Amino acid sequence: MSETFKQLSPYLEKAQALKTAINLFEWDNETCAPPQAGPYTAKMIGTLSSEYFNVVTDETVKSLIQACKEATDLTEIEAAIVRELATEVERLDIIPADEYREFSELCAEGGSIWAKAKKNRDFDSFAPTLKKVLEFQKKFASYRAKEGQHIYDVMLDEYEKGFDMKALDQFFRTLREQLVPFLKKLMDSGVEIDHTFLTGDYPNEKQKEVGEFLAKYVGFDFERGVLGVSAHPFTMELHNHDVRITTFFKDEVSDSMFSVIHESGHAIYEQGIPDEMTLTLVGTGASMGMHESQSRFFENIIGRNEAFWMPIYEKVQEIFPEQMGAYSREQFVKAINRVSPGLIRTHSDELCYSLHIMVRYEIEKMLMEGTLTVEELPEVWADKYEEYLGIRPAHVAEGVLQDIHWSQGAFGYFPSYALGSAFGAQLYMYMRKHMDFEGLLATGNIGEIREFLRTNIHQYGKLKDSRQILKDVTGEDFNPQYYVDYLIEKYSKVYGV
Amino acid sequence: MSETFKQLSPYLEKAQALKTAINLFEWDNETCAPPQAGPYTAKMIGTLSSEYFNVVTDETVKSLIQACKEATDLTEIEAAIVRELATEVERLDIIPADEYREFSELCAEGGSIWAKAKKNRDFDSFAPTLKKVLEFQKKFASYRAKEGQHIYDVMLDEYEKGFDMKALDQFFRTLREQLVPFLKKLMDSGVEIDHTFLTGDYPNEKQKEVGEFLAKYVGFDFERGVLGVSAHPFTMELHNHDVRITTFFKDEVSDSMFSVIHESGHAIYEQGIPDEMTLTLVGTGASMGMHESQSRFFENIIGRNEAFWMPIYEKVQEIFPEQMGAYSREQFVKAINRVSPGLIRTHSDELCYSLHIMVRYEIEKMLMEGTLTVEELPEVWADKYEEYLGIRPAHVAEGVLQDIHWSQGAFGYFPSYALGSAFGAQLYMYMRKHMDFEGLLATGNIGEIREFLRTNIHQYGKLKDSRQILKDVTGEDFNPQYYVDYLIEKYSKVYGV
Repeated sequence: MSETFKQLSPYLEKAQALKTAINLFEWDNETCAPPQAGPYTAKMIGTLSSEYFNVVTDETVKSLIQACKEATDLTEIEAAIVRELATEVERLDIIPADEYREFSELCAEGGSIWAKAKKNRDFDSFAPTLKKVLEFQKKFASYRAKEGQHIYDVMLDEYEKGFDMKALDQFFRTLREQLVPFLKKLMDSGVEIDHTFLTGDYPNEKQKEVGEFLAKYVGFDFERGVLGVSAHPFTMELHNHDVRITTFFKDEVSDSMFSVIHESGHAIYEQGIPDEMTLTLVGTGASMGMHESQSRFFENIIGRNEAFWMPIYEKVQEIFPEQMGAYSREQFVKAINRVSPGLIRTHSDELCYSLHIMVRYEIEKMLMEGTLTVEELPEVWADKYEEYLGIRPAHVAEGVLQDIHWSQGAFGYFPSYALGSAFGAQLYMYMRKHMDFEGLLATGNIGEIREFLRTNIHQYGKLKDSRQILKDVTGEDFNPQYYVDYLIEKYSKVYGV
Repeated sequence: MSETFKQLSPYLEKAQALKTAINLFEWDNETCAPPQAGPYTAKMIGTLSSEYFNVVTDETVKSLIQACKEATDLTEIEAAIVRELATEVERLDIIPADEYREFSELCAEGGSIWAKAKKNRDFDSFAPTLKKVLEFQKKFASYRAKEGQHIYDVMLDEYEKGFDMKALDQFFRTLREQLVPFLKKLMDSGVEIDHTFLTGDYPNEKQKEVGEFLAKYVGFDFERGVLGVSAHPFTMELHNHDVRITTFFKDEVSDSMFSVIHESGHAIYEQGIPDEMTLTLVGTGASMGMHESQSRFFENIIGRNEAFWMPIYEKVQEIFPEQMGAYSREQFVKAINRVSPGLIRTHSDELCYSLHIMVRYEIEKMLMEGTLTVEELPEVWADKYEEYLGIRPAHVAEGVLQDIHWSQGAFGYFPSYALGSAFGAQLYMYMRKHMDFEGLLATGNIGEIREFLRTNIHQYGKLKDSRQILKDVTGEDFNPQYYVDYLIEKYSKVYGV
């Protein structure tokens, strides 16, 4: 270990322990804590977060970062850690402490104001808070902006390095021009896919059983992870030996099945981080988008692939003999790939998903450019859904108020969801040229696919950004056309059009 | 709030958040974490503990303590917090940091060396570690000892203020002189109590159901707590709105039933801490012994009381119709009060329990006085069990290696278990003079008993020590004779002798 870096270690370890403790509180809050613990948990998280802020922005840390940057004996991992730390310090340090505190408190309140407004279908009660959050984030982005950089690009960069408005405009244009008409074509085809048998009497214990089976089957390591239950499924990594996922139980059994596969994708990424990188600033997924590429790869490209079900559909039928016994694998695979444009992003099918994101991207961009006011949001939202998905929300709870993100100040986050799907498709199109992808799935050899992802993506953690990873794996820069081709090829087949 | 005290607050909050995070890691480690997380969790706890050490022993904290001691405007609670903090700082600060680290590492290892030695029934492999732990603790106690104070008194004082060797010698003499012959009398009486029906086919789900029912019935507040499952039952408080207990499932159903009631006793104490004291240094039970008084009060004085079962035995029979349907409440109550001297403390019946503790007290005292070597432990242990309980361990796993405590350096801890039982008995003997204790139980009005404990004990947290609480409640100093009287009266009746 570099002698200079060594001096930084105690600070890094402390920051990491605090962050891990915060993560544990958050996991616990969603899966275990008693009803009345909430405000106290928030207080604990608040205190630990300030302490994290103090540790990272300590003057000694800043001068050690400088010394490390000048040192010549850092390993590749050490240098990457210093780079991430410098970014983190810059991000935190540029905001005046009192503004940061005020903003944190606003976000803490924001969640419950949003939840109440959504429940009451009352946008007006949320608008003032949203305006304040928006103003803070615009101000913070302006602090961080480089000469001539647009504030929305600052925000986008935080979640997905190298994907600015220019790149995203082109990405979404590709989707808009090709997927919107394709979706219309499918909807006009008159093809009906029966999916009603996926809803019904699917007891929670059995949904849990099938979830455990699927997680294990796709490669989630239960020696290094647990599967819990929460209101909304999520993944929480403490370190590479402790990565946790949750599921939920809905009337439609496929909801829990595919959310388990999705979260397993996130978790397999984190479980694939090497020991020497875990509990460091580079010991996690490369970016939001690359993470989503893995979860959606497992969920859709693997999980909704007919070949995936060949070795295991009978097992699922055994768990649900009365519910699924009479339905063939072919019927099941069609049902889980049924396209049905809806209003809610988190319930979207694979084809429509990125169109939900496109709405959000276009709206965020207008908000940041100042061409849209908060008051106009509900109407513009509804118009865009009608234009791209052919349906219009009846009220704001199924419209602009459906997502929590903005209430927490997460502007620029949404595009990563769509980018991740597109990264995954580009990886898949490459992989199937170089391995018998469907053949491996059909024979239950999913391990070989997982190993490919581990070797080419997971093991690098944050040593490379998502764009670099894509280039190194596929030999090409990001190209959204693969995603469109993948979707059109797949769904033309499903719908026979 | 006192202005001087206010300056101390940020340090106290930070220390408390760190401690709460450590508690959460420990809870999680026993109830949820995946198999391979252990060493990483230990590292996190280690880092957070050092940070706790740093916060508490900060020079600013020391001078603020001094300022607070001199200030005249502290509230009663604030003054008590400062008192506790001063004790904590003194305790931590007197030990050189490198010795403390070496000792912590030794204890971290100690647990697994002990576990392995116990598994292999091999005392020799544990003896060198135990010697080192013992030497450290003797040294640390000598640092803390006041002029002329015996090191064992220093250790005892840490767990139970005001109970030194002099007090404990008298306490255990009372037990030895009266309980040992009484136990022999019971064993020679020829009375046999059938308890075989408590062992058998008691499915885990049903044990869980009865556990939840009992916890709720005795007053555990599920809005402010959860019931989990772990290898060994324990209670973990995060704060007064989040107190957690665990249970386990054994072949003998009464094991899980009474461990739930026992842990509920601990939890009800912590749930009874007032809001203004929670998450402060005085916001927890007065002492180890006072805590154990509450858990054993609920377990034995309430839970093994015939009147307790009058309103609820039928409910338990409904949960276990085949297993218990044929056994009357009288038979059940006799079975759960069967006396059977055994070798294992944690499986002991109510009557024998303090005799197990007496063995440990006498041995610890000899170790600290230097009249017993570590090598001699197994033999002396066996001799004492034979003398007091009439049985001799066949090997060290059921002898001197049964408890983890010493491997963690916890010398002076055991006596609190017995003291707690005696505190509980003294409280009971007082209460039944002033309320219709059995009448309340028989009519399901356990809430009135719980309220008495809350008002007279729980609400004070650490504002008073255990001795003071006992005096204030019963009007008398601690008197072990109540405990002996309670046991002899109760078990004479159970055995008809």
